[in-house]
Amino acid sequence: MTQVVGILGGMGPAAGADFVRLFVDACAQHMRAAGEPVRDQAFPEHWLAQVPVPDRTGALERSGEGAHQPLEPMLQALGRLAALGSRAVAIACNTAHAWHATLQQRFPQIEVLHVAREVAAHLAAQGETRVALMATEGTYRVRLYEQALADAGLECHLPLPAERALVMRGIYDGVKAGDLGLAEACFSEVALALSRRHGDVAIVMGCTEVPLGLQGSAAAKGLKLVDPAQVLARALANRAYAGSSPHGTSGFTAIA
Amino acid sequence: MTQVVGILGGMGPAAGADFVRLFVDACAQHMRAAGEPVRDQAFPEHWLAQVPVPDRTGALERSGEGAHQPLEPMLQALGRLAALGSRAVAIACNTAHAWHATLQQRFPQIEVLHVAREVAAHLAAQGETRVALMATEGTYRVRLYEQALADAGLECHLPLPAERALVMRGIYDGVKAGDLGLAEACFSEVALALSRRHGDVAIVMGCTEVPLGLQGSAAAKGLKLVDPAQVLARALANRAYAGSSPHGTSGFTAIA
Repeated sequence: MTQVVGILGGMGPAAGADFVRLFVDACAQHMRAAGEPVRDQAFPEHWLAQVPVPDRTGALERSGEGAHQPLEPMLQALGRLAALGSRAVAIACNTAHAWHATLQQRFPQIEVLHVAREVAAHLAAQGETRVALMATEGTYRVRLYEQALADAGLECHLPLPAERALVMRGIYDGVKAGDLGLAEACFSEVALALSRRHGDVAIVMGCTEVPLGLQGSAAAKGLKLVDPAQVLARALANRAYAGSSPHGTSGFTAIA
Repeated sequence: MTQVVGILGGMGPAAGADFVRLFVDACAQHMRAAGEPVRDQAFPEHWLAQVPVPDRTGALERSGEGAHQPLEPMLQALGRLAALGSRAVAIACNTAHAWHATLQQRFPQIEVLHVAREVAAHLAAQGETRVALMATEGTYRVRLYEQALADAGLECHLPLPAERALVMRGIYDGVKAGDLGLAEACFSEVALALSRRHGDVAIVMGCTEVPLGLQGSAAAKGLKLVDPAQVLARALANRAYAGSSPHGTSGFTAIA
């Protein structure tokens, strides 16, 4: 028996759609690793909520009023995912994890996965010791990855202010506005600069829009890119199949 | 104001995930056509249900008992999508439309889109007069497309029995089992045979798994392939934005 799981998306919607693809891929991988045939009916039931949520980074830049605006629609959608039977939910947006503790606290009956903790555990298990982080200003502001990486014993390098502005431009004027060429130019420039400065370091694409613009980029070829959405999708698949396979979750991690 | 819409998927899950991508693309196109900026918050709220549903073609081959097995989980998921506020729902599986009339009848308060009728209307509007149809045996059995195409005044050619078996192999042993190379080989052989026999005809990829194996195929380049999922995704986007744009739905159809 598999467990029902949920995906909280809409931040942005293209990243949410892509997360479902990654989750379905991870489930198929799980079945293959367990030696089971991949059939439609063997996939766990899962629900995707794509709801309008006010801009996360914008809210984090405002202190006081407005700072909680994104919370309300996320709470509502999470409650509905819980009512649909979800036992675990993944949030398909890095910056939105600034509200993770509140979301988890309000719905103690479900597990709300934490993307940065999953990524830190994954990288530590792979023997990495240093990473560079491409993310939104909102994600840097709440030290989402820095904290989780430090807890796992990993060192974290950030881009310079001008490079951080370039990442934001690639996210908003690039991916979110549908200009993938601009996105690729912005992201690859920053990724290459990080690689020049820090050497053979794992580069965490800590915003769901970054892989959409950077993967498949010729300029970024050879860089050690880590897609947190992929790590999170595998973690969600592990929760969906928890207890259903003779290999358990550890057998699955081995193929990551 | 946009309307909440739903997507009934899981048949198979990869096709359901891809349908969300097509829907998000269609929404972005809609905003651009209306001269509005593409922002996360401007997308309509939408929900994807990916639930296990017994094999549709298998059920249609059995008369009597078992024939209604796929209906129950579809009804349940559709009821939940309606409860979430969906005003219109698209079914991300062609064969499942064999149960369309029952689904629509049980939930008169929402519109359940009909993929074949949307495709027939789209092709008729483009001036097509003849199409060839690649689909599952279940879809042929219920004459899903033949009926809708005839109603719109279009002639419909079917593959030969051996070619139909090849399509089924590409769907089940190919896409659904994760072997895209096999899927491409099966589908492109049939598409090329249809093209040789019927000339410059629009080839309807009337099973959601077919585009996943055939699009990007070098062998199929130059063929006039029609993806019903894309047509259906645009139709669902039109419903979501109904009444919200000065151009209405007709302005959107023009950019298809």
